[in-house]
Parts: sequence; structure tokens; C-alpha cells
Amino acid sequence: MRKVSFERNFSKHAEGSCLVKFGDTHVLCTASLEEKTPPWLRNSGKGWVTAEYGMLPRATGERMRREAAAGKQGGRTQEIQRLIGRSLRAVVDLTALGERQITIDCDVIQADGGTRTASITGAWIALNDCLKWMETRGMIKVEKVLKDHVAAISCGIFADQSVIDLDYLEDSAAETDANFVMTGSGGIVEIQGTAEGKPFTDEEFASLMALAKAGIADLVEMQKQAIA
Amino acid sequence: MRKVSFERNFSKHAEGSCLVKFGDTHVLCTASLEEKTPPWLRNSGKGWVTAEYGMLPRATGERMRREAAAGKQGGRTQEIQRLIGRSLRAVVDLTALGERQITIDCDVIQADGGTRTASITGAWIALNDCLKWMETRGMIKVEKVLKDHVAAISCGIFADQSVIDLDYLEDSAAETDANFVMTGSGGIVEIQGTAEGKPFTDEEFASLMALAKAGIADLVEMQKQAIA
Amino acid sequence: MRKVSFERNFSKHAEGSCLVKFGDTHVLCTASLEEKTPPWLRNSGKGWVTAEYGMLPRATGERMRREAAAGKQGGRTQEIQRLIGRSLRAVVDLTALGERQITIDCDVIQADGGTRTASITGAWIALNDCLKWMETRGMIKVEKVLKDHVAAISCGIFADQSVIDLDYLEDSAAETDANFVMTGSGGIVEIQGTAEGKPFTDEEFASLMALAKAGIADLVEMQKQAIA
Amino acid sequence: MRKVSFERNFSKHAEGSCLVKFGDTHVLCTASLEEKTPPWLRNSGKGWVTAEYGMLPRATGERMRREAAAGKQGGRTQEIQRLIGRSLRAVVDLTALGERQITIDCDVIQADGGTRTASITGAWIALNDCLKWMETRGMIKVEKVLKDHVAAISCGIFADQSVIDLDYLEDSAAETDANFVMTGSGGIVEIQGTAEGKPFTDEEFASLMALAKAGIADLVEMQKQAIA
Amino acid sequence: MRKVSFERNFSKHAEGSCLVKFGDTHVLCTASLEEKTPPWLRNSGKGWVTAEYGMLPRATGERMRREAAAGKQGGRTQEIQRLIGRSLRAVVDLTALGERQITIDCDVIQADGGTRTASITGAWIALNDCLKWMETRGMIKVEKVLKDHVAAISCGIFADQSVIDLDYLEDSAAETDANFVMTGSGGIVEIQGTAEGKPFTDEEFASLMALAKAGIADLVEMQKQAIA
Amino acid sequence: MRKVSFERNFSKHAEGSCLVKFGDTHVLCTASLEEKTPPWLRNSGKGWVTAEYGMLPRATGERMRREAAAGKQGGRTQEIQRLIGRSLRAVVDLTALGERQITIDCDVIQADGGTRTASITGAWIALNDCLKWMETRGMIKVEKVLKDHVAAISCGIFADQSVIDLDYLEDSAAETDANFVMTGSGGIVEIQGTAEGKPFTDEEFASLMALAKAGIADLVEMQKQAIA
Repeated sequence: MRKVSFERNFSKHAEGSCLVKFGDTHVLCTASLEEKTPPWLRNSGKGWVTAEYGMLPRATGERMRREAAAGKQGGRTQEIQRLIGRSLRAVVDLTALGERQITIDCDVIQADGGTRTASITGAWIALNDCLKWMETRGMIKVEKVLKDHVAAISCGIFADQSVIDLDYLEDSAAETDANFVMTGSGGIVEIQGTAEGKPFTDEEFASLMALAKAGIADLVEMQKQAIA
Repeated sequence: MRKVSFERNFSKHAEGSCLVKFGDTHVLCTASLEEKTPPWLRNSGKGWVTAEYGMLPRATGERMRREAAAGKQGGRTQEIQRLIGRSLRAVVDLTALGERQITIDCDVIQADGGTRTASITGAWIALNDCLKWMETRGMIKVEKVLKDHVAAISCGIFADQSVIDLDYLEDSAAETDANFVMTGSGGIVEIQGTAEGKPFTDEEFASLMALAKAGIADLVEMQKQAIA
Repeated sequence: MRKVSFERNFSKHAEGSCLVKFGDTHVLCTASLEEKTPPWLRNSGKGWVTAEYGMLPRATGERMRREAAAGKQGGRTQEIQRLIGRSLRAVVDLTALGERQITIDCDVIQADGGTRTASITGAWIALNDCLKWMETRGMIKVEKVLKDHVAAISCGIFADQSVIDLDYLEDSAAETDANFVMTGSGGIVEIQGTAEGKPFTDEEFASLMALAKAGIADLVEMQKQAIA
Repeated sequence: MRKVSFERNFSKHAEGSCLVKFGDTHVLCTASLEEKTPPWLRNSGKGWVTAEYGMLPRATGERMRREAAAGKQGGRTQEIQRLIGRSLRAVVDLTALGERQITIDCDVIQADGGTRTASITGAWIALNDCLKWMETRGMIKVEKVLKDHVAAISCGIFADQSVIDLDYLEDSAAETDANFVMTGSGGIVEIQGTAEGKPFTDEEFASLMALAKAGIADLVEMQKQAIA
Repeated sequence: MRKVSFERNFSKHAEGSCLVKFGDTHVLCTASLEEKTPPWLRNSGKGWVTAEYGMLPRATGERMRREAAAGKQGGRTQEIQRLIGRSLRAVVDLTALGERQITIDCDVIQADGGTRTASITGAWIALNDCLKWMETRGMIKVEKVLKDHVAAISCGIFADQSVIDLDYLEDSAAETDANFVMTGSGGIVEIQGTAEGKPFTDEEFASLMALAKAGIADLVEMQKQAIA
Repeated sequence: MRKVSFERNFSKHAEGSCLVKFGDTHVLCTASLEEKTPPWLRNSGKGWVTAEYGMLPRATGERMRREAAAGKQGGRTQEIQRLIGRSLRAVVDLTALGERQITIDCDVIQADGGTRTASITGAWIALNDCLKWMETRGMIKVEKVLKDHVAAISCGIFADQSVIDLDYLEDSAAETDANFVMTGSGGIVEIQGTAEGKPFTDEEFASLMALAKAGIADLVEMQKQAIA
């Protein structure tokens, strides 16, 4: 696993924020609190946690067209931001949150593989800090709202070896690529596995899952230290 | 598993087509051949297989806004059509296809859960028939291009039971929902598992995978009969 | 006139639905009831009937770009759906309908000329069945809301002959092409006549109108049998 | 019929231009020549004539939202500009024009009913003047390209009377509203008749057509004087 | 300075309107009153004045693509309409206006440089006439709402000479181009200066400002005569 | 003037990059080189320098909607990116650059007033470093392409005092707000002055310009140290 770091309170304005680094992949996660919910939750007593994802045009090796200039968010962007939102909601008690919305923006400042897993892992820190900000103001109890940690890691089969936390070059060359999202207590929230080249076997998948489990346990430990 | 049927040659115009039914989920899959590739494959000697997915506005219990009227395809649509495309390409030799593009349109006529798994399973039939159409004209050899079957099924944990091929009601109520895409020879192409409520365990996931494996073997058998 | 058929209750979910076939032109018409009106009718005591039209990408001989992917509905689509809506409203008492909206979706599954006339003719069946669904629930009286039948047919001059219900080949080759929408009692609702090649004369137009009149009378008869 | 006038050479830049007035309806028609055709005509030896239609936001009694700000052209706009283009092409020999495109922009400066009929009638003048500009430069012969006049008028049934050239108030109140496009030699190019309230009869429609015929003959006479 | 003229009441429908000409640059300015404010001013007791800007496709030497067809307003359009709005608001007491919005549409009928300065200068006339229309109906007092005149002119350095009111050819060739917006009492509202070629000096800029000051004083005088 | 800093080589991938800070305003500027020019410069022997500007959704005190999600870039964004591009081109010899395009992306990570002036000042560093990267590879000579420094600063009148480099609170409260872009040799490239409240006088504007001149001289000095 590459060197992981969390820089909390990166942003002056956000209720919670964190610059997360997985090696050369750097993602700024900010949490923004709004005292209103989406229309379908009005008067339900429940709140909402959602995420948006973006990449700076030159976060990557070749400059990509700015989505705002293209006039729409691509399929990959939407897929990732839906994943981040689902992952966070898996550890949040929306009723305890109350009729509010927290939006986590994950903006990739520099990309080198694993932007979605870094986003989820850093977003949890930003969310935690936003909830603490709220607790300080007597709005909620963090322990009631945030039921567990959540973190994510990619694993893949590369040159017939199971490897964890793939960087861009490994990711491009991997035969199989899987992303795992798990909680602090080891529950599985999301699994996404894709054969890039030839299909993979149950055994290969089981080895990736074992690797992920260990990696996510480490990430959760680092999250705990970061918020201590 | 719900009753599955394939109605081939459903469309007068398409090079290959299939109306696939998984219970009350009905998807029309058509394959369209074009003698050109996407820009990034020009002069590479390779072809491309891609998919688009759509839903008629009243395929569902409540009418949904038409994406063409909304002016964009939603995140869910893009996620699904990317999945269908990847799944098909996993069993196609793009070099043997030559510099051509086959577009599989999967349009949901009626929805009752499992539209993406029905789409993949039916799309394979449409693709196979399109390739046969090409073989008849001396353009390719089907056996060189199409390396294997591919089919998909959803499994979930519902009322603490592992169930296969969830309909809309089961899907809405499931605690865990997973989609599996596998080949005829049992290789895994895609796994997507999501905890809707509480996180799931390794054992639960293993039981879903076993269920999926058996179900997909059945689907592949039905595909074989359908094209016989 | 090509073989015409109506398959009612085609859709499990819609309040009314009909798969209409004019030869190889197949259109799925669904009626969706909503208990709200467009903003400009709020508190007017009146309801609204509107239509949307779409074509599956491979309904035609060559695959057309999906409008949802293009990000907008083309001029032809908008022209046709406005025509369908106007035609239906011509036989509906919007006050008797009450403050509700019925949306008729006409989706072309397979196209071979005359998609707009088939849409109007089938949409009337879907609308009728939706109103019956409402009557069963004590919401309205069908006979108060639906004042008459409405049906449509195309006529054209092709190889100097007046022909009715043009298929795609005839339509492409026709010198003059006209669409007529009429009621069960013979009243004219819409006339759209276009010279594709050289302008046409009064006499030619009169002959097309006579042909249409007879054809629409037949279609209305078939509608009556279909809903009997 | 309201007072009709044509002010030629209204625009300094356009190859042909005309401010046409039908009473208080004022439309600026400009013809722009480009030395290229649309893609589907390349290397066909044929040219193209097309039209675009727009309305200034406060051309109407209440300010309408600017289509450029809304981000798309409405259905009505597209319907009208398609009609103008078809009407002009009915009197143009596209082969004699050669591989060039003439775009006629019809922009409504002030609206009081009949904007589409005024547009067609004025567009013919702009087109004629553009072709003369081309003839002066030895590019074409006007008489070879422009085969006839084309003009348009609306007729309607209002308070049980057939009336011609409806202004906005008459148009809003009319039971039946029809637009006719005819050539100088009396050929019919387009007929669009719509029952706004109750359906109309053959006889009513015949009376509208007779009225239109006389009106268009007058308009063609005025076009002749205008270009003399 | 080119010949300047104002033609008031150009539009039948608008509450205030003016066709302003700066030489061959012709802009139609209309003022539309609405009895509602933008959302952020609701219940503030204040009104709003805003502007929109557009250009007919063939206002220019070469036809430009219609923004409504392109699906968005370009950067230049937005920049200009923001400038016009700010300039007008600088001389309006929004509290005295009350909770209403006046939208000034500036549509360029013909362009020959200086469309933004002509727009501002003509928009003031349209605004003034709209306010008079309101005064006649007892809604406001013009003198309370409209605190001063506002007018605008461009100046530039062209062939080493300071010139005022640049036409298109001068503007294209100018080394430096500046737009000035000033009030009747000589206060500066907006300055926009751009070096097109080499940077300019303080002295050059001071000479442009002096020129502008005199020119705007003349324009204000003409405005006074126009509304007298 | 607030504390200013430049962090060069902030981005691993870009040919030149700089994180510029003006107090709490932090902008990441990256330069991306492409070996092609925009269409209108093809075969002209000249290159192009352009800029794009964006803001992370929570760069500001309240979260703003993501432009990519809104589907378009706002007027303010377009105005600023056009300004940055023009400012840089004022000091670049496009012929010496050759047929290449350099795109400078200025993405605001955190905003506290003056984002456009910080962007221009930092963009110059990124551009310089991109050109050095090119020089190292023998593509150009930096001194031939980059003719001078360019930097920008805002000045305003706030509580009747001329102040420089306004932060968000000062900017919001300022009566007059002006942005100045100047070269290292003191030439003026852009001036944008706006009266937010009451119009300003020549003397006030002259005092702002003097302040800006001194400030920009300081910024240029800092740029020199940064690239030393």
C-alpha cells in the first residue's frame, strides 16, 4: 500500500475538510452542511448525505476536457459520486442526522490511480469533522449519527500477482481490478470487481478480498489516528 | 429464478435482435453494425462493441421523465450501459472483429427488477445473431470473434434468505443486492455488490456468489437452446 | 391500407396501453395519469392531455442517434408529439377530466412509415383505457370526458396515383404526402399536406382527402371493435 | 388582408434582406450565402436552402424567455423553421444552385399573428435578392435556380366567418386556423389546418382554401412589384 | 463620433423601447416590466433592473451561429449583458422602484462596432420610457427612481491617434480599445480598457478618458433632447 | 497587500504549475502543452495561449453549485477566463511559440477575494515554467516567446480610503472596485473599474491606478524571485 496521509481542516470555509493522499493521488474532500433536505425527504424527519466528484483538468497525465465546459458530467464521474454517497450513507443514521443535507465534494487535485478509494476514505474524515462541528453547536451527537468508519481500497491481479492500492500504471496493466468498501467492524459495503482482460476465478477474487480486508483495517486505523 | 425467454429476430431492421424476458422485465436488445470504429481505434485493426441503455417512460410503476426531454442521461443509465458494454467485450476478440463497431441497444419495454442482468443476457443473443449475419456475408467467423457466452443475474439477501433474480419488490426490500456477470466457462467478468441496509459478511457474499454461479449456468444453457 | 391491429393492456404498469401496428410500423402507446396539472391550469378546474413521442435507436433501417445521448429532442420529434397532443385534446372535455394530467407516451418500437398516424390512432385506445380505469375508480365518467373517436392516416401521390397509409418506401418516393386527423363523426382535426417534389393541385388534394376520409372511418370501426 | 409591405436591402451585410410587414407583424429576413453544403450533400453537385426562425423576447405582448438563455429552441420554433425551409426549397432548383448553402434567417421584431406566413413571404424576397447578388457575380442564373414565387397566408374561422390573415387576437379566438403555402402559379406547397375548438368540415376547409388562394395571388403580385 | 439617433416607441408591446443607431450599428432596446423580483430580493422592498443582449445571426459581415441553436450564450454575450445591467443599476434607486423587475433587452439588428456602448446608451432611453409609463399609472415617480443619465462610448488608439466611437474596422485594427460608462453628472460607472497589441501607458489612457468624457457629455445631451 | 506566495511544480503531471496564494485566496495554475492549435490558426505558423477558470464548490463561504452539474459555465467564469487568456497573450510572441497551444487552468482551491488577480499572477509562473520545459527539449527559446512579466492586482475605495488587494469582505463592501493587469515594464494590459455604489471620479480612479502600479511592481519582483 502506498503512503497514506490525511490533512484535516485543509479548507477555511467548509464545516469539515481533508486533503487525503494515497501516494501521488491527492483528493480534497470538503463537507458542506445545509439546513434542508432533498424534496423526497421533506417532513420525513430524515436527513441526507450525498457526494459529488470532480477532477481538475490537469490532474492527469494528459489534460482532460473540463466537464463544466463540455456541459455535462461524464458517466465515470456519475458512477463514482454515486458510489461515494452510498458508501457514506452505509455508516450514517439519517434519522439521527435530522432534516439536513451534508454534501461531500471530492475533488481530485492530482491523480495516480485509486481516486475513488482515496475519495471514500478521505470523505469519511471530512464527514466526521462536519459532524463534530455540528456537535459543538448542539445540533447532533456524533456517536448517534456516525455508526462506524468506512474506507476503501483497490486490489488487482497484475502479472499474476495480487496487489493492493494500484497506481495508474498498475491499474492500466491489471488483468483484474476490484474496489472494496468496508466498515471499521469489517462489514462489506460495496464490492466492484471487473475483469479487464480475461475473466477471473473465485479463488482469485477471494485472494483480492482477503488483501482488501487487511488493507482497509489499516486505513481505518489511520483514520482513527487522524481524528484522535 | 423467474421464467426466462428469448424472442430472436424481434426487429425487422437490426442485424441481430432479441426480446428478452425475465418474468415481467422485458428488454428489447438490438445489434447495429457500422463499418467504422471510434476515433481512438482508427487504423488499429481492432473493432469495438458498445452498448446503450434506455427505459421507456412508463416501463415503471410511476412514469419517469423521458431522458431525451430532460436533456441528459442520468447517472444510473450511464452506469448500466457502461456495464453492458464491458461485459460483452469480455467475450469478444476485437481484433477478429476487424475495424467495425457493433452497438447493442437495450431498451426496457417493461421493468420489474433486474433490467441490467436481463439486458446483458439478451444482448449476448443479439450480438451472436449480428455476428452470424456477418458470417453469412463472409465478413467474419463467429467462432473467432465470440469467445464464450456471457450472462448475468442478480442475487440478494432478503428476509435473511439468499434469493436469486430479484423482482422490483424484492430488490427494493433487499438488505444486500449483488449483480454477477459470468462467462459460459464459469469465469467472472463483473461483480457488483451493495449493502442497501447493514453491511454484509464474507459468508453472505460467498452464498450469493454460489447462487449466481448456478443461475448463470442455467441462463447460458437457455442461451444455447435459443440459438440452436 | 396495411393490416392494422391493436394489442390492449400491453403494459403491466400503465393505466392504459396499446401496441398498435400499421403493417411493420409498431408503436407502444401508454397512458399515465397524474393527479396534478401543468402550472398554467392550476385552480382552473381543468385538466390536460399531452403526448410525448420517441423512437428506439434501431427502429429504423439505419441506427439513429439516441436523443437522450444527443441531449435534446429533434425538431421532428417535437413536431410529432405536439400533433398527437393536439389531436387527442380535440376529443376530450378537459373540464370533465378535472384537475389531472394524462400523458400519452408513443414509443416507436419498429418504424416503416406512418409512425405519427399510428401513434394518434393507438393513443386514442390507450387514452380510452386510462379513462375506463378512472371510471372504475369513480373518478370520472368516460362518456363525459371522451367526446368522440380520433384517428389518423397518411395519404400521398406516388407514381401519379393516390395511395393511402404509405410505408417507408412509398413515403420516401411520394411526390405529395399528407396526414389527416379526423374524428369518429367525420370532423377534421388536423390536415398537414406537403409537396415533396412539385406542388400539388386542389384536385389532387381533394382526392387525398376523400381517400383519408374512408380510411379513417375504417380505423374508427377497428377502434370500436378493439375496445368492445 | 392587413397592409403588407416589403423593405428590401434592410441589412447592410446580408447578400439579400427584407423587412416584411403584415400589419403589426414585422419580420426581418436575411439571406446568407456560404460556399459549402451540409455534409450529406457533399460531392452531390447540389446545394441547399435552409431557414432559421427566432423571435425577439419582447416581440410579443408579454416578454418571453430568450431561447438562447433557455438553452434550446422550443418545439414551435423548430416546427416553423422547418416549414420555411421546405417552402423555399419547393421553388428552388438545388442542382442549378450548385454546391452552396443559403440560410434564410427570419427574426420576428414585432409579432401580431401570422409570423410564419410573413416569414415565408418575406424570405422569398431575401432569397431572390441573394440570388441576384450571385448572378451579378456570375455564379448562377436566377431564372434557372428560382423556379417560381412562393408566399403564404393564414385563414381561419372566427365567429363563424372565414377570415384571412389573422392577427393575434383573431388567431387566439379562431375555431379553426390554417396556413397555406402556394406558388406563383397556384400550386400548393404546404397546408396546415388545425381545429382549435370543434372539428371543422370539408366545406369549411374548402372555403378557407379558396380564400387563401386569392390572398396568395395578391401577395405574389406584391412580391413582383417589390422586386421590379 | 458617428451619427447617433434614437427612435423611441419602436415596439408596439414594450413598456419602453428605443432603436438606437451609432452609425451603422443599430440596436433595438426594449424595457419589459414584471411585477415580481428575483428570488434573492423577495420581501426586501427592493426591485431589480437587468439586461439581456443578443445579436441577430446576420447582424455581422459573416453569419454567426444562432446562440439558441448552439444551446448556450457565449462568453462575450454574457459579459456584455452583465455590463449593461450594472451600468443601468448605477443610476437607479432600487428601493424607489419597489418590488418589480425591469428587463432591458438589447438586440443588435445590425453591427458595425460599439454594440455594447450603443446598447447602454439606448437602454437608458427605454428604461426612462418604461418608468414614465409606470408614472402615468401612479406606480412610481420617475425622478425618485432614475437618479441620473448613463451613457457609454468606446475610445481607442488607432494608428497612434486617439479616436472615439470606433466602427468595426477601427476596432479590429486598434492597438488599445476602451469602453467608458459615465453618468450625466460626469461620474464614472465602468471603465474597461484592453491592450489589443502592445500595452498602453498612463498618458495614453488619460487621453482616451478625456475623449470619452467629452463624447459621453454629448450623448447625454442627445438623450435629453430625445426624451424632451 | 496580503502575503503572496508561489509554490512551483505543485503538480506532478503538468508541464508547468504553481499554487499561488494571495492571503487566503489559493489558486492552482497548471500549464498544459498540446502540439496543435485551434482551427482558425492552422497553417498560420502561430500558436495560442488560452485559459480556463474554475472554482471548487466549497472554495467559498457557502457551497456553490458545481458548474459541471449545472451543465454550463456561468457568465462570471467565462468573463474571468477570457481576461486571464488575454492578459497572458499580451506578453507572448505567438509566432515564436509556433503551432502549439498552451492551456492554463486556474482552479480556485480556496477563495477570499481577488481570485482573478491571483490567477493571472500565478498563471504567468506556470506559463514560464512550461516554456522552460519546452526550452529544455529544444522546442523554443523562452526569451523569444515570453516578452515580459504580467501580474494583476485589485484596488478599491472602501470607507473612503483607497485600498489594495481586497479580500472578500472588503470587496463586498467596496464602493469602487478595479482590477489592473500590467507588465513588468509598467505597460497597462487591462483595466476594469466598476462603481459598486456611487460613481467615482477621475481623481479617485487615478489614485487606484497609482496604488496598482506600485503593487504590481512588487508582484513582478516576487515573480522574479520565485523563478530565480
